[in-house]
Amino acid sequence: MGKLLIVGTVAFDAIETPFGKTDKILGGAATYIGLSASYFGLESGLISVVGGDFPEEYLQMLDKKNIDLSGVQIINEGKTFFWSGKYDYNLNTRDTLVTDLNVLADFKPIVPGKFKNCDFLMLGNLHPGVQMSVIDQIPVRPKLVVLDTMNFWMDNTMEELLKVIAKVDVITINDEEARQLSGEYSLVKAAKKIHEMGPKFIVIKKGENGALLFNNGAIFFAPALPLEDIFDPTGAGDTFAGGFIGYLASTHDISFDNMKRAVIYGSNFASFCVERFGTERMINLSQEEIQNRLQQFKELTQFEIELTH
Amino acid sequence: MGKLLIVGTVAFDAIETPFGKTDKILGGAATYIGLSASYFGLESGLISVVGGDFPEEYLQMLDKKNIDLSGVQIINEGKTFFWSGKYDYNLNTRDTLVTDLNVLADFKPIVPGKFKNCDFLMLGNLHPGVQMSVIDQIPVRPKLVVLDTMNFWMDNTMEELLKVIAKVDVITINDEEARQLSGEYSLVKAAKKIHEMGPKFIVIKKGENGALLFNNGAIFFAPALPLEDIFDPTGAGDTFAGGFIGYLASTHDISFDNMKRAVIYGSNFASFCVERFGTERMINLSQEEIQNRLQQFKELTQFEIELTH
Repeated sequence: MGKLLIVGTVAFDAIETPFGKTDKILGGAATYIGLSASYFGLESGLISVVGGDFPEEYLQMLDKKNIDLSGVQIINEGKTFFWSGKYDYNLNTRDTLVTDLNVLADFKPIVPGKFKNCDFLMLGNLHPGVQMSVIDQIPVRPKLVVLDTMNFWMDNTMEELLKVIAKVDVITINDEEARQLSGEYSLVKAAKKIHEMGPKFIVIKKGENGALLFNNGAIFFAPALPLEDIFDPTGAGDTFAGGFIGYLASTHDISFDNMKRAVIYGSNFASFCVERFGTERMINLSQEEIQNRLQQFKELTQFEIELTH
Repeated sequence: MGKLLIVGTVAFDAIETPFGKTDKILGGAATYIGLSASYFGLESGLISVVGGDFPEEYLQMLDKKNIDLSGVQIINEGKTFFWSGKYDYNLNTRDTLVTDLNVLADFKPIVPGKFKNCDFLMLGNLHPGVQMSVIDQIPVRPKLVVLDTMNFWMDNTMEELLKVIAKVDVITINDEEARQLSGEYSLVKAAKKIHEMGPKFIVIKKGENGALLFNNGAIFFAPALPLEDIFDPTGAGDTFAGGFIGYLASTHDISFDNMKRAVIYGSNFASFCVERFGTERMINLSQEEIQNRLQQFKELTQFEIELTH
């Protein structure tokens, strides 16, 4: 079992989808990543920041999942990062209504001593300067560093982002972001260009159209599980990343074949995430549900064809 | 080996993509289906119509592929169906510039005697009245009837189309058409509704995002092969259908497990089709190329995960 360190946001989200809307609920990249990875029974910790308005019950819930919160700073006089968004009818596009950085604006991450020797480092979506600061605080390079980021940082902090990208083993981004980062429309070409920027593995997330894993010319594809209803896509990409790195950390195997399984685990967890608002579905999954759905992924994708040579 | 009968258009296409444009070249749903299915060494025949302007060399090429053309009417005083389209920069949408029905406008299909006992019937995209006329001319129901259609017929001849849909075993349509036909956005729900209209199997083609096969609650997914360059998507859906029914006819097995393989074969052929303009790539494929690409599909999709219960 590897020790997993996660940096990212812990936030309040207010979400509106065609199926309803929420008040401020628990959100944030690190929250989703941590919950998803927690199902592997790892030693894991979060690095993040919240304000004095952040409910104790949320912290207790994460603590009960065996997620170490000693790296989560609580700024009593500040307010927790708040994001609000509204999805269109088909859930494929969303408008950001509010982004209040609050305590995130001045966040200086501090890696707790016990995680300075982490084996797996997940850099959740966040200012690349914060991501770099975490990398810099870890004296011996982890076995695997995974970066998730988004177009906002490409638009506003590309130079800093490229420095982080150069230092990681795996980058996970969505298809449009891969195109923006590489300047290539073809995702195969985009992955090649991003590979040249540093990462040995590129995961391109395509939402309901699945995810592609690229490594040195080899490609693996995991579909999203076709669902009758997608309720709320918020956090699906982070949940995917948590399942991906959580599986790798639990098996301590970073071969391409094991990364294939990790991508399936990521898709598996993401398929649960979208079934309810926010983190609701991710808080109480059973191992039986997870295994049953893996069986569905096998039935969805596995076939037997004999080749004639 | 089953005997395969294909009805559909044989046409001239003029195509413009970001990578170039063509004059009138060989096109048409039946052409692509026939070429794709020809690689299985079946007894197959086309039912279609062309004008006196249709080049003898095209007919000879199809004949050399062992495609029986006795059901292709040649109207010497008429002109061949002509379609012209222009794709946008990402090849995902296209504008139809010209549709000259010509000899297709008065087409009365005639099933040749030797195909009245066909085992597999492929109703390529065409007026549903023509498709129904072919069904009606076959005295003993074939082992499998596959229908391909498009939004144009849903817009203009829905009543006739629904009658054809009620008579087939498999329908292949794209995602937007599945939504239009069913009134459901979720493809899982759409497939359920379409199932109630008649077909036991529903294939939903999602272009570069692969294809879904639905049967009574079971789902199988085949990705499109990620390619560096997609040159011209024209005919990819028809080529998919040809590979699908060609494989089923060659194995004479219409079980769900065999349909999974058929969907992979369909995706395999479609991945070749899009590499060149029109039918160019589909005319001279080698069995080695086909098998090598099947190996790529396996590497792209197959994984080993042990379930814990």
